[in-house]
Amino acid sequence: MLSKSQISLLKSLQQKKNRKTHGLFLVEGIKSVKEFAHSAYHIETIYHTPASASKMLNLSQKINFHETSAANLEKFSSLTTPQEVIAIVKIPQWPVLSTKQLTKSFSLVLDGIQDPGNLGTIIRTADWFGIDTIICSEDTVDAYNPKVVQATMGSLSRINVHYADISSLIKTTKLPVFGALLDGKSIYDTDFGPEGLIVMGNEGNGISPEIEALIQNRVTIPQRGKAESLNVAIATAIFCSEVCRKTFK
Amino acid sequence: MLSKSQISLLKSLQQKKNRKTHGLFLVEGIKSVKEFAHSAYHIETIYHTPASASKMLNLSQKINFHETSAANLEKFSSLTTPQEVIAIVKIPQWPVLSTKQLTKSFSLVLDGIQDPGNLGTIIRTADWFGIDTIICSEDTVDAYNPKVVQATMGSLSRINVHYADISSLIKTTKLPVFGALLDGKSIYDTDFGPEGLIVMGNEGNGISPEIEALIQNRVTIPQRGKAESLNVAIATAIFCSEVCRKTFK
Repeated sequence: MLSKSQISLLKSLQQKKNRKTHGLFLVEGIKSVKEFAHSAYHIETIYHTPASASKMLNLSQKINFHETSAANLEKFSSLTTPQEVIAIVKIPQWPVLSTKQLTKSFSLVLDGIQDPGNLGTIIRTADWFGIDTIICSEDTVDAYNPKVVQATMGSLSRINVHYADISSLIKTTKLPVFGALLDGKSIYDTDFGPEGLIVMGNEGNGISPEIEALIQNRVTIPQRGKAESLNVAIATAIFCSEVCRKTFK
Repeated sequence: MLSKSQISLLKSLQQKKNRKTHGLFLVEGIKSVKEFAHSAYHIETIYHTPASASKMLNLSQKINFHETSAANLEKFSSLTTPQEVIAIVKIPQWPVLSTKQLTKSFSLVLDGIQDPGNLGTIIRTADWFGIDTIICSEDTVDAYNPKVVQATMGSLSRINVHYADISSLIKTTKLPVFGALLDGKSIYDTDFGPEGLIVMGNEGNGISPEIEALIQNRVTIPQRGKAESLNVAIATAIFCSEVCRKTFK
């Protein structure tokens, strides 16, 4: 049985402050739950309907399963169409990020991304292109927000998403720093080399002036039509594709 | 004064069947409204709050303006945070699409895109890259859905979005047809040439079997990481970037 206070606690995980207090977040839907179950994340409990019990069979026996009604799941689901399986997962305690671990690869640096769908799509895209580290400014939307988790389609279970003072990070790194800016060199003429940081800015305002001042390589996706800007997840994907294309040759 | 029945009619435009009946759709927010006002679209009426009256000054005098309260706008707005300016715009009657008009450029063909945010983002991205025609299968989400309009950020005012039997279109065109499929040739090794159709499939199922059978050039965005797929708007953007990159050299 799920008590009222338990449901209320689970529902409270939709808010960032409660996720922080309890160190837990929600993963909804059997597909995503399975990806987390097969990752380094620690699952506290998987809540599922009786009808979904059979889908739990090939998951680790160490996981705490809890069968409950669809009506109960609906009470703490963040989705308009609630899923039949919801996992409560521990937020990992990442070790302090050292810039050394970023060498010989590309990492994304996100400066103030606000939209959960954008962050989720960026995490999913990074996972497709094999970019395994994303460093977010402290004011970027929380990666454990249920809408972000949903949009990553399970990719959050594989990508290291750090929150850090990105200004200090950029100041201390020896890696080349590329920034997506409207007045830079064409991305098609940019030699990204084998490693670096790719800085992407906020949806409305782009990269903040403090961070922009630290960027050595200003890079632009050339505009041929009339749209004022590209969505940030779209722009990030084009950067991911460009930094990776040589390695596919 | 806006009567109850007028408000009810305006609100009804959130549904596709009512948009079809009345031949009208909603554009919300001053920025998007201005882009439509400066386009070939015909604006029936712009509803705005008294506080926004000054923003209407540089718009055409031929437009019918209607000042009303923010509370009234909220009643027919589709947004959770309603805007202070909402335009009622006529749905254009596109002439029947001839495949001749698609030569010497690239056009997107969308096979069953369901998510309004994805379609909106695709329209915005096409506008950035100067791709001015999108042909949607009949079961693709309606481009005049308020969530699509919102996500295009004004780009819908510049892009020709047709709905057509895409199977017939592909059968009759002499243009090369490229399709985004998981088992194709690498996009980085594909010579797109100067013109063609780029077919993108549904979010969950990809390109439908009927359409897939008509595709001559199967093209893949190579995967380096572990995500199962890319979001369709992201994949479309990478195709747009690739077909355009040569023309930027």
